[in-house]
Amino acid sequence: MTALATPGLLALDRAAQDLLFRTARTANTFTDEPVTDAQVAAIHDLIRYGPTAYNGQPLRVLLLRSPAARARLLPHLSSGNRAKTAAAPLVAVLAADVDFHERLPELYPHRPQARDWLTDRATRVEQARFSATLQIGYLLVGVRAAGLAAGPMAGFDAEGVTREFFPDGRHETLLVMNVGHPGPDSWSARLPRLSTEDVLRTL
Amino acid sequence: MTALATPGLLALDRAAQDLLFRTARTANTFTDEPVTDAQVAAIHDLIRYGPTAYNGQPLRVLLLRSPAARARLLPHLSSGNRAKTAAAPLVAVLAADVDFHERLPELYPHRPQARDWLTDRATRVEQARFSATLQIGYLLVGVRAAGLAAGPMAGFDAEGVTREFFPDGRHETLLVMNVGHPGPDSWSARLPRLSTEDVLRTL
Repeated sequence: MTALATPGLLALDRAAQDLLFRTARTANTFTDEPVTDAQVAAIHDLIRYGPTAYNGQPLRVLLLRSPAARARLLPHLSSGNRAKTAAAPLVAVLAADVDFHERLPELYPHRPQARDWLTDRATRVEQARFSATLQIGYLLVGVRAAGLAAGPMAGFDAEGVTREFFPDGRHETLLVMNVGHPGPDSWSARLPRLSTEDVLRTL
Repeated sequence: MTALATPGLLALDRAAQDLLFRTARTANTFTDEPVTDAQVAAIHDLIRYGPTAYNGQPLRVLLLRSPAARARLLPHLSSGNRAKTAAAPLVAVLAADVDFHERLPELYPHRPQARDWLTDRATRVEQARFSATLQIGYLLVGVRAAGLAAGPMAGFDAEGVTREFFPDGRHETLLVMNVGHPGPDSWSARLPRLSTEDVLRTL
């Protein structure tokens, strides 16, 4: 199915489709233009409405702004990710709060007993990882909704980052993501995507 | 931070913000209006551009349309989710392809050796779950971009659904999601969301 075949089927207008998905790209270089705290708060204020299991909202976002904080992260990244992360206007460490259940009586008030369904830590880790990862999907869309580019990176030592930045033992690091305005040669040609036939099956 | 404080900070216009996040809601009842294969293909054609680790795109979507297929799912849902799922215009079973690495030479052609980094199944399961869950985040946004409502459900037996629908042993079921146009009394008042202060921290 090509993009040209679908214009009338989505309620979202074409410019917004492009901004969020079709022309948006993972950025590897950034301009010097800063990403402000107000922009980050506006992104969060938008994407916090995305659904999570039990409305648990386990995603926690650590923004690395100071050079000292940035320097603590770099050794935990794969070598190919260090220079671009050192130079990015903003770096976000995205983690799941494994003890998110403590707030369920407030967040899921019609079933406050949900907290007690999650007394087993392994179950909670799985739930926290799942819902926080969903939220990272929303966050990526939100970064783009702000007219910014995201640079999510798979290559890093998650346990090392967790030890460095979340010594409390209640967080699991899921992703490190650079954010900014794309700079020169920020990406190569788009990589191939699977077809509808590869992904969808009907019974 | 309230929504009123942020209007100028996002590039995405307010109507699109509302469609995707602010007024969009998890639906529990649906009208009889069908969700067509063309709509589903248009949603997939939009969200398939969302980023995944190694461009691996492990999400697989099984659409249950026939009454026989729907009947196979219902026993694996928690009792509170059965009636609404039986009545939904479309039910999607969302799973991760644990053997997604087989296609990396095609999907990540500049580093075809990436396939060989993923020979360990446990590593692959973790990667497949993570990227497919990100893609479910994009898919939820995509369903809303089509003017439809999603009804993701946490209450189901994932292993049972996997055994029933993916006996090949190469998939892990992550979520069951109803899709349609919201019906009467489709939701209650919106549940509370965490504040920016709860979620964001700066170093």
